[in-house]
Parts: sequence; C-alpha cells; structure tokens
Amino acid sequence: DVEGHENYFSREYLDRRCEKRTDSRWLKGKQSSPNTVYLLFFNLNPFVMSQPEELSAGVPAIRLCRLRWDSVEELLADPGTTLIFLGVEKQTKPLSESSPEDEDGLAAWFALGVDKCPTEHLKLQHSNGFFLKSPRPGLLQLSENEAGVIAQARSVLAWHSRYSFCPTCGSKTIVEEAGYKRTCLKEGCPSLSGIHNTSYPRVDPVVIMLVIHPDGNQCLLGRKKTFPVGMFSCLAGFIEPGETIEEAVRREVEEESGVKVGPVQYVSSQPWPMPSSLMIGCLAVAVSTEIKVDENEIEDARWFTRQQVLDTLLKGDHKVFTVPPRQTIAHQLVKHWIGVNANL
Amino acid sequence: DVEGHENYFSREYLDRRCEKRTDSRWLKGKQSSPNTVYLLFFNLNPFVMSQPEELSAGVPAIRLCRLRWDSVEELLADPGTTLIFLGVEKQTKPLSESSPEDEDGLAAWFALGVDKCPTEHLKLQHSNGFFLKSPRPGLLQLSENEAGVIAQARSVLAWHSRYSFCPTCGSKTIVEEAGYKRTCLKEGCPSLSGIHNTSYPRVDPVVIMLVIHPDGNQCLLGRKKTFPVGMFSCLAGFIEPGETIEEAVRREVEEESGVKVGPVQYVSSQPWPMPSSLMIGCLAVAVSTEIKVDENEIEDARWFTRQQVLDTLLKGDHKVFTVPPRQTIAHQLVKHWIGVNANL
Ligand SMILES: Nc1ncnc2c1ncn2[C@@H]1O[C@H](COP(=O)(O)O)[C@@H](O)[C@H]1O
Ligand SMILES: Nc1ncnc2c1ncn2[C@@H]1O[C@H](COP(=O)(O)O)[C@@H](O)[C@H]1O
Ligand SMILES: [Mg+2]
Ligand SMILES: [Mg+2]
Ligand SMILES: [Mg+2]
Ligand SMILES: [Mg+2]
Ligand SMILES: [Mg+2]
Ligand SMILES: [Mg+2]
Ligand SMILES: [Zn+2]
Ligand SMILES: [Zn+2]
Repeated sequence: DVEGHENYFSREYLDRRCEKRTDSRWLKGKQSSPNTVYLLFFNLNPFVMSQPEELSAGVPAIRLCRLRWDSVEELLADPGTTLIFLGVEKQTKPLSESSPEDEDGLAAWFALGVDKCPTEHLKLQHSNGFFLKSPRPGLLQLSENEAGVIAQARSVLAWHSRYSFCPTCGSKTIVEEAGYKRTCLKEGCPSLSGIHNTSYPRVDPVVIMLVIHPDGNQCLLGRKKTFPVGMFSCLAGFIEPGETIEEAVRREVEEESGVKVGPVQYVSSQPWPMPSSLMIGCLAVAVSTEIKVDENEIEDARWFTRQQVLDTLLKGDHKVFTVPPRQTIAHQLVKHWIGVNANL
Repeated sequence: DVEGHENYFSREYLDRRCEKRTDSRWLKGKQSSPNTVYLLFFNLNPFVMSQPEELSAGVPAIRLCRLRWDSVEELLADPGTTLIFLGVEKQTKPLSESSPEDEDGLAAWFALGVDKCPTEHLKLQHSNGFFLKSPRPGLLQLSENEAGVIAQARSVLAWHSRYSFCPTCGSKTIVEEAGYKRTCLKEGCPSLSGIHNTSYPRVDPVVIMLVIHPDGNQCLLGRKKTFPVGMFSCLAGFIEPGETIEEAVRREVEEESGVKVGPVQYVSSQPWPMPSSLMIGCLAVAVSTEIKVDENEIEDARWFTRQQVLDTLLKGDHKVFTVPPRQTIAHQLVKHWIGVNANL
C-alpha cells in the first residue's frame, strides 16, 4: 500500500495555480510584492544556507534562501534570467505587508535561473548564502517541504537550459506562460499550429523495481561502476516509446540482469529533478533466477536475502552491502518489501 | 487488479533487442534479408490494407502491409527516409529462406518513415495498399499484435519528425542507434558530453483517472468540445515536472472539474502513440462533489450513476451518454470500476 510513507521530492508544498500562468497582470503584481518568495539558481544549483548546527537531530542540513523582491529586482531585469512561477503557499494567511496585489492573501513563489554568478551582489544582503556546488548530496539534505519545491523548480529550469532552440526548425524560442512554455519565433514553423510536445517541459518516465526471487525471500539488486563501494540498488531504466510500465519493468530487468519477470505491482512514484525524471517504483516477481549481467549498464547484480537486507537497513551492518539513502525511492522500495509479504 | 485485460497498443509482439541497436553489422545483414519485415509510414500514417470483409466477426478491419526488402530497397537509399529497428519476432522459427545473416533464426522488423508519398512505386507490387488518411479511426482497427508494433513505431517516428534539430544549440542532428538517438553535429555542443535527454525519444506521462463519488455509486466524466455528441470520458492531463502520479491526478481533477480527490489507485497503463504519450490509468476517490468546470479545457463534467454506466456500456443504450471505444484506457477504467467494489 502506498499510504504511510512519502517519498522525498514528492511533497506539494505549493499549490501550482496553473491558471495564473496566463494572467500576466496578476503575475506582474505578485512579482513586486514584498510577500513574494524568490528561489535563485545558478547552473541549476540553488542558493542556500547551511544550518548552524549541522546534522543536529531531525533538522535539515541545508535550507533554501528565500529572497525578496528587493534582492532580485536587478537580476530580473537581466535578459539572461529565466523566471518560473512556482505557485502559492497552500494556507492563505494575513500577509505581513498588505499591498493591493496581495488582497487575495496568496503568497507567491518564483524560481529565478541566472546565467552569471551573482554572489557578490547577494553577499551584501545574504552573507551566509552560497550556491550548491553540485546537486548531490546537497539537494538531498533539504526539508520535505523545500525538497518538493526544488523538484518542480529544478526540473523546469533544467528544461530551459537544454531546450532554448526549437527542435522542429532550429530557431530561437521565447518563454511564455510563466515559464511553462517555449514558443518558436520562426513564422510558419509547424510547432506553431496544433498541439505538440516541443513547446512544453519534458518529464521522462523511468521504471525502478525491486525484483523478488520466486522463493519470496531474496531480492535482486545491482550496482553501477559509479556507485560508492559496496552500494547496491534497485534496477531502473527509461520507459521507451510504445511501452507500458509493466513491459518496461520486464524488459529492463531482463536486459540488465538476465532475470525474467512475471507479475509487476506499482508501489509509488517520485519526481527526480536531475534533470527531470519521474521514477515509477514497482515490485516485480522473478520467474527465473540465473543472473547474467549486462556489463554496459551495470557491473554486478546479486540476490540478497531478507536477512542481509534487514542487517544493512535496520541494524546498520554494512559488511555485506549498503543501499542508497532514505531519500531515494530505491531505499523505500526495499523497506516496503521488508515490511510486506513478498507474495504479490 | 491489472490481470485479466490488456490495453490496446500495449502488446509487445516484438522483442526490442535493444543491444542490437549498436550492432551495425547485424543490422546491415538483417536489412537485406528476405525474412525481414518493413512497415512504411508517410506523415506518420502507416501503409495498410483493409480486410476484404470489413467488420466481419472479430477480424481487424485494417492490416499493416508487411513489405520486404525488394519493395523498399530504393526508398532506403533516399536521404529523406528514417529507418527504425523495431525488434525481432518473439518466436524463433526456421526462416523461410536461409541466408548467412539469418542463421540466428531471428525475423527482424523495421519501420520506414518517408518524406514523399511513394504510392506509385508501391502500387506495382501492392495494388490494394494505401496510407491511412489520419490516425483515427484507422489506428484503432488493427489486431492487438499490430497495434503494439504501431505504438512503438509511430511514437519514435513522431519524435524524429519534430526533433531533427538540437534543442540545446539549434544545429542539425544525425540519427544513431538504429533510430533511438539523435546526436548534435555541432562540435562542443553541451549535448555531446554527459547524458542528457535531448538525444533520446520523448515519452510524455499523462494521468487519466476515473473519479469515484464518495457514495461509491457514481463516477465523474467530462467532455471536450471536440468530442462526438453525447460522449463523455475520464479526465486526463499531463504530469508536470516535479509531480508524482498521485499529485498529478489530484491537481488535474481539481483544475478541470473543481472536485477534490483523496486516495488514488493505479490500475494499468497504455502507450498512446499520438504522438507519444504514456497514459497512466488510475481510480481516484472524490472527497468533494460539487462540480465547477474549467471551460478552457472541457465543456461539461457530470456524475453518472453506476446504472447509467451499465446501460451505455453493456446494454448499448446511448440515450444518456456514450463512452470512448474499447481501445481506449478510459473505456477500460470505466469497465474496471463497474466490475469492482468502488471502495478502495
Ligand atoms: N531520456 C533519457 N535520458 C537519458 N538517457 C536515456 C534516455 N532515454 C534513453 N536513454 C539511454 O538509456 C541509458 C541508461 O539506461 P537505462 O536507464 O537502464 O534505460 C542511457 O545511457 C542512454 O543511452
Ligand atoms: N507534453 C505536452 N504535450 C501537449 N500539451 C501539453 C504538454 N504538456 C502540457 N501541455 C498543455 O496541456 C494542455 C492539455 O491539458 P491537460 O492534458 O489537461 O494537461 C495543452 O493544451 C497544453 O497547453
Ligand atoms: Mg537499462
Ligand atoms: Mg533503457
Ligand atoms: Mg538502468
Ligand atoms: Mg488539464
Ligand atoms: Mg495539464
Ligand atoms: Mg485534460
Ligand atoms: Zn520552430
Ligand atoms: Zn547541439
């Protein structure tokens, strides 16, 4: 059952209010409101602070810097800046400073992607802020609320960073609909008539599956060469055109490990904003057991017993192997299996 | 439960054999083998025949023309032709004409997209063949096996037709990996280092959901202006960056109908190759009942009783409304609900 846990990156802290994306007057008003929150990104990395007492009980190690209009006004005027409307806070509350554009009580959030590092400018106001150097591990150290916002913001910005030209004709495009559409500037381009996906952000569906041994007491995990020593994870792969979720699970498992899969059961999903995947997590029951690793994709795959998994997961005994951290859906699938009867 | 029915476009008649996509010697050999099957497309429409006795019991009304090397050799030489390796038939069998490249017993299938209508040329050999005029209804009148092949072939060809320029820099690209990759021709383009989705076919995940009334005895269906008179279907929408399947269901239902949704249960998925969606079918339980239609997206939404649904679906009584045909996952979701207890 899906209930009872929530995947990291999955919380909808904001209400997207998609209908506001075409309401330029409303957007304009919110942009200069003192209640509006701006998140800043450079090279897809957010501007953050680390917590004074890092790793202290239950507190996220990294927090997003929530900038205000006065800090970003200049950046907004830069033609290299991409502005995305993220949504509004779900709870309406009396806003601190009331201005005409805030009569609706909605606190708006925007993401700003900039193409030059603006730290000097910001340091004056946010002396403890810095841009993450790389997405991991920083992006996995946020609160659940902020992780959810980052999932949306980073995926959309990643799309803009790679799709600024029209793939149908090669011309430049302009940003519309508050950051959720890019329209080709060439008259007569086929992308301008009818509805086509070239104008919209891309989301790549990926299957990620924990394969259960026919005996119900072992699971199949694999490792890529790039993994930390000793770490094994669920097999995963991109869903191809013309495939169902279930067929993609069967194909990827057989390709990567040689194991054949029968029944497949969907468990939960997770946005993964590096750059813009939707991880679709499944349990899958093997109908064969012999492993034949595809060395292009992974370097090893093995059956692990329930006891071995319990040892690494609950007892922290990493002699045999480790699994990825709790923020990954792979971790949650393994935990889900440990907690359920393996016979689907 | 997913078992027991299969969605149209979902059958994997072929084994994709992805590892062969980089084996140019093998591909070359298969291309000229007399056992190889070619499917031809012009404007994304396949070259087909209609059955002599259309609509006769259980027989598909439309069949694909399975062309051979001698029919397509000239087309293959044309620079406007796109060639996609689809896979091999699952059952190995003694191939009719044995040539060295067929020692493996594998019957390969390819899709060919051409940019000029080649009918004259083909008429000599296939006098009863023709290109479909539009995808519907023709594409819904194939056998289950052929529908599965078309789902793959048409999605990949649709991607080539819209993505022949590099979206990162606007340059031309070349086709690689037997039709599953496009590589930018500009030296130094950022798309050439690291892994990025710009080089790979796009699959758009869409949620499609049957929303059940809190009383368990009614379901919510809506209609777009473009639907045939009287037809209502499940609500649906594109999954956005940073969303889970469940959140996308809740957001789209509330946007389009004003109804709030609680629990969501995945049922089954369906590739929809117009152009390249993955329909993710769910049941969803409403926690509010008042309908407020978003008139930009749909023109009407209503609660229908179980009895009304039974009447239209099983008795063919279309006085109140009709649902889409059996080939759609919307139809299958409605049928699934009728067959199950509505309390998730
Ligand atoms: N959307 C995509 N983004 C990145 N890589 C992709 C994509 N689609 C297919 N691939 C290919 O899939 C490989 C990773 O394998 P897998 O994740 O197992 O499907 C990459 O090395 C690419 O060759
Ligand atoms: N990948 C996509 N392909 C086509 N339309 C999209 C896509 N993503 C978002 N849209 C927008 O979604 C609208 C359809 O709404 P819905 O299917 O309810 O999400 C279209 O009119 C587009 O404005
Ligand atoms: Mg793979
Ligand atoms: Mg793959
Ligand atoms: Mg993989
Ligand atoms: Mg919608
Ligand atoms: Mg939508
Ligand atoms: Mg819709
Ligand atoms: Zn264009
Ligand atoms: Zn390029």
